[in-house]
This record gives sequence, structure tokens and C-alpha cells, in this order.
Amino acid sequence: MAVYTEVQPEALAHFLDSYGLGELVSVKGIAEGVENSNYLVQTARGSYILTLYEKRVRRDDLPFFLGLMEHLAGRGITCPTPLRDLEGRMLRELAGRPAAIVSFLEGISVKRPSVAHCAGLGEALAGLHQAGEGFKLTRENALSLAGWREIATRLGEDADKVSAGLGALIETELDELERRWPAGLPVGVIHADLFPNNVFFRGDRLSGLIDFYFACNDMFAYDIAVCLNAWCFEADHAFNVTKARAMLEAYRRGRGLSPEEIAALPILARGAALRFLLTRAHDWLHTAPTALVNRLDPQEYVRKLRFHREVRSAGEYGIDGAI
Amino acid sequence: MAVYTEVQPEALAHFLDSYGLGELVSVKGIAEGVENSNYLVQTARGSYILTLYEKRVRRDDLPFFLGLMEHLAGRGITCPTPLRDLEGRMLRELAGRPAAIVSFLEGISVKRPSVAHCAGLGEALAGLHQAGEGFKLTRENALSLAGWREIATRLGEDADKVSAGLGALIETELDELERRWPAGLPVGVIHADLFPNNVFFRGDRLSGLIDFYFACNDMFAYDIAVCLNAWCFEADHAFNVTKARAMLEAYRRGRGLSPEEIAALPILARGAALRFLLTRAHDWLHTAPTALVNRLDPQEYVRKLRFHREVRSAGEYGIDGAI
Repeated sequence: MAVYTEVQPEALAHFLDSYGLGELVSVKGIAEGVENSNYLVQTARGSYILTLYEKRVRRDDLPFFLGLMEHLAGRGITCPTPLRDLEGRMLRELAGRPAAIVSFLEGISVKRPSVAHCAGLGEALAGLHQAGEGFKLTRENALSLAGWREIATRLGEDADKVSAGLGALIETELDELERRWPAGLPVGVIHADLFPNNVFFRGDRLSGLIDFYFACNDMFAYDIAVCLNAWCFEADHAFNVTKARAMLEAYRRGRGLSPEEIAALPILARGAALRFLLTRAHDWLHTAPTALVNRLDPQEYVRKLRFHREVRSAGEYGIDGAI
Repeated sequence: MAVYTEVQPEALAHFLDSYGLGELVSVKGIAEGVENSNYLVQTARGSYILTLYEKRVRRDDLPFFLGLMEHLAGRGITCPTPLRDLEGRMLRELAGRPAAIVSFLEGISVKRPSVAHCAGLGEALAGLHQAGEGFKLTRENALSLAGWREIATRLGEDADKVSAGLGALIETELDELERRWPAGLPVGVIHADLFPNNVFFRGDRLSGLIDFYFACNDMFAYDIAVCLNAWCFEADHAFNVTKARAMLEAYRRGRGLSPEEIAALPILARGAALRFLLTRAHDWLHTAPTALVNRLDPQEYVRKLRFHREVRSAGEYGIDGAI
């Protein structure tokens, strides 16, 4: 929700020249994403997003992220498409930061997804998983089991400062997830952070997917589990099985789901809940409440985690594994 | 440099309906202005800026600001034009804040104005002063002599925390300004904060004036003095007489300047320097260095103030009062 690095308009105009984008008409720093500095740039040719990558994004990962977006866009996914400059480069430097320009996507992100939005998401997620096939670069999921253990260790006793008993809950959960984490499920490129703020709609129609900076190679079903958490709970923390069913059935119509993937959903959903619980707890403890950055409440994910622990089979998510 | 109030897209779409602007296509919180929350909104009809007024803007002042922009736009000034909703209202409410939608202006603000930019500014400032004529509402300049004294009193001994001896400098200066502040010069509606970040250009051509939230009734020549400070010093703090001359001569071609106005420029420029010195010193002391808000350096205005104290006549600004 912030612009961290200021770009001089004169330097920007010069930078844009090397892309052949025509005269710079307008530039606005935009409050999108929490990790990087983003500018909405308008030139004689059209609208673009300029991103300056800040320290939380590893420079070595950028070829994967940018290459992936280009790969997906080439396969019909409406996602930001990195522009290549006149020398063919996608990754550049501006104001002392790694920088890239991507296409601008129309659409708005919804705060309270409807059933129709969840169905649209399921369809798009299946399409994304299929379109990722053939992408040559790979990136390990830094925020899977080993990464969670690392954050949990760093949190240590501070976890209980977030809420009483949280440290013990995390420990128990991590132990069980490490024992029961599925293996052998279909893997490929996943988004890994497909929250409503990363999905654009025009009305009920999905118009774009953004923010691929957690994308990695992992189980497709884990990506679905992230979305179950992010899209199918109400503001009062109640699970909405109608939304989950709409999402899962739309996904299944697109890519299909094996009985093993369906059976694994409850444990994957617990893992996904723990992942966001951990990073939110970490940010909660390390972000000053005065900073103009959204601190996301870890408690929301404590509740979701507890919900998934009670789920006995994927049928409770509204999907029948026998079909 | 921040968005303070978040707007739910669903609420925004509903809000836009009452203006007849068509489907909401995109909305981005933008880092523009330090006082309010601003969104760049794109609808089927075009691009607009939505502003939510935060606590530093007095609600009672909003009819003046919005009315002024409408008045100026009606007289050919390229400034944000407030839209009226289907019931004819310019000032509305959204997300619990006073809110308005204004037209979007193309152009970028320059960080290092050229001589041509300064000439363009002088011409536009003269046009602005003339176009303000006939505007019915009035607003006192809350940041003139009495306001400065008030901030100085509030700063008290803390001024020396900004830099050693600053408190004494402010006291001496205020005393002298109160003795020598001009009276009887032509007055009208002034912008009062026409810094380079509030002026848009396309190339050398001025394409818009924004941010009228300090506008008030005061001496036209004081507005010029603000611009002398904001536009005619180099990054190394040297005064650039070529830029000043270009600005002043362009202004004079537009509205004219009486010998009394010209003679008053040095004292008005000292006052204008003190005004920004005081507000910056105040913000410097009251803004946490971690906050994602630009803290502007008060020292810059200490140096400018010291420069103007040495100026013996307006001739040193490159303008001849005898003509």
C-alpha cells in the first residue's frame, strides 16, 4: 500500500524512450501490492504499470516471475505482460532498483466475492495451471513446510504476543502437517497467493490475474487450498460451502481433479491456513502500527486453521471425491 | 504520499452510479498529495480523480475549494473540475469522509523546472489570478502572519531541535515581517502552494494546475513570492535569476505588476520562505521518520529565507520595477 522508491519524471521519460512507448503523458504512484513500488504510467501508446522491486523480492527470482507472466500471457491468460525494451530485455534498472514495465489490466478486485466470482476464480485457476505447462524455469516454494518451520522458529515465544497459546498451536500443527503432508500429487506452476485483491473482475466476469511474486512449482491442489481459505469464508468467519462448491466444480470442469487431490484438500487447506497465519503473525510483530501499511490480522487465519482441523473429508467443502 | 482511507469497490461502484459515469473499469489508490486520499478511477466514460478529504482539511472550507475549481475551469484554467452528481452536488460523502470527483488531468510534474517551465508557470499564474475574479466565496489565508506566529508559538523551544538557533531566527524574522508586511497591494484568489508537484507539463507546455487546498484570498504578489521560492532555486540552493526573470516577465505580460508589487517582492519572498520553513519544521518534529510520508527538509527554507534577507531590491530577482 505504498510507494517506497520515488522516480524522477525526467529519468522515467528517458527510461520509457528505451521501450519506444512514445511521450510520457502521466505517471501516478499507486498503492498496490505491499512488496514493491508501482506506478501507473500513461504514454502516447497506452497505460502500463511500472514496478520497482524492493528488497523483499529476491533479484534472482525476477527472471522466473517475469518469464512466467510472459509465458502465461502468450497462452491466453489475462495477466500483466512484461514489455521488452528495444534491446529485448524485460528486466531493467531504474532509480537504483530492478524494474520492469508490464501491461495494464482493466478490472477491479472485489472485497466480498460472490458465488459467481468464486466460480470465475475456479475456472481461471484451472486455466492458469494448464497454461503454466511447458514453462522452462522453476522456482521452489519458499513458503512451504520447511519455510513455515523457519518462520515458526523465528517467531519463537513472540507468537504468544499475537495471541495466547498461538505458539503451542503452531507447534502442534507443524508437527502434524510434516507427518501428513501429501506427496505424489500433480505439480506444476502455481500462483500461491491468489487472494481476491490479486484478481480483477468486470461485473461477474473475471478480467485478470495479477501479482505473480509468490509463484512457484508446487502441488496444484495446494493453490486450490489457498483459494479455499481466501475466497470461501464470510466476513463473520463462517465457511461458505456454496462458494467452495462453485469454485471447486468450475476448477474441475477446467483441469479435472484426481480423487487423491480431492482427498488431500483438508490437509492442504490446513497447511495454507498455517502459511498465512505465520507470515501475518510475523508481519504483525514486525510492523509498527503507525506505518501506512495494511497489517493483516493473523487471528483470521487462526480461525480458518481451526475450521479445517475439524473437516473430516473434502465432501465438507462441497465436492464429492467419488465422481 | 499515501492512501489513508480504503474504499470498498462495491461502495465505489454504487457511488459512481449517482454521477452517471458508467461502469467502473479500474480504481487505483494513488500517492498524490499529503493531506487526502486520492484514487484514480476509470469508468466507461473516462478517467477521474476521487478524493476523500482527511482530517487536515476543514470540511467548512470544501465548498470554497470545489467552487473555486469549478469557477476557474469555467474560465478556461486547466485545473481539476469537480463533477456534479445527478442531483447537482459537488460535495458528497464516501467511506465516512467528505468526497468529491474531479476531472483527470494529463501531464507530469517536473522535479527540476527549466527556464521554459518557469516562464510557463508565470503565464499560468497570471491567468489564474485573472480567472479568479468574480468568484463569490472567500477564504482567509490561514497561513499568513497570524498563522505563522501561532505555529512559531507552538514550536517554541522545539525549533532548536530542528537546527541550532532556529528559534531565534524565527522570532527575529516574525517581528520584522509583522513590522514591514505590505498593505494595499492588489488582492484576489491565490493558489498559495503552487510548487512544481502541483503543476503538470507535457514537454515544455503547461498542461494543468492542481491541489487548490491552500487557495485563499490574499495578495497576488504573495503567490508570486511562493513561486520564486519553489521554482527559482537550484538543487544546490543557488538562486537562478534567469528562471526568476522568465517567470516574472511572463507573469507581467499576463496580468501586469504595479511598481509597488514589484518593490514588495523581497519582503513577500521572506514571508513565503518563513511560511514553508514553519510548516516543514512542525511536520519534521511531528512525523515519525518511519512513516511512509515525505518529510520535507526545513533547512532548505532556512537557506532560502537567509537569501531573501540579503536581497536589497526586486532587481536582484531579475525584474525592473521602473518599467
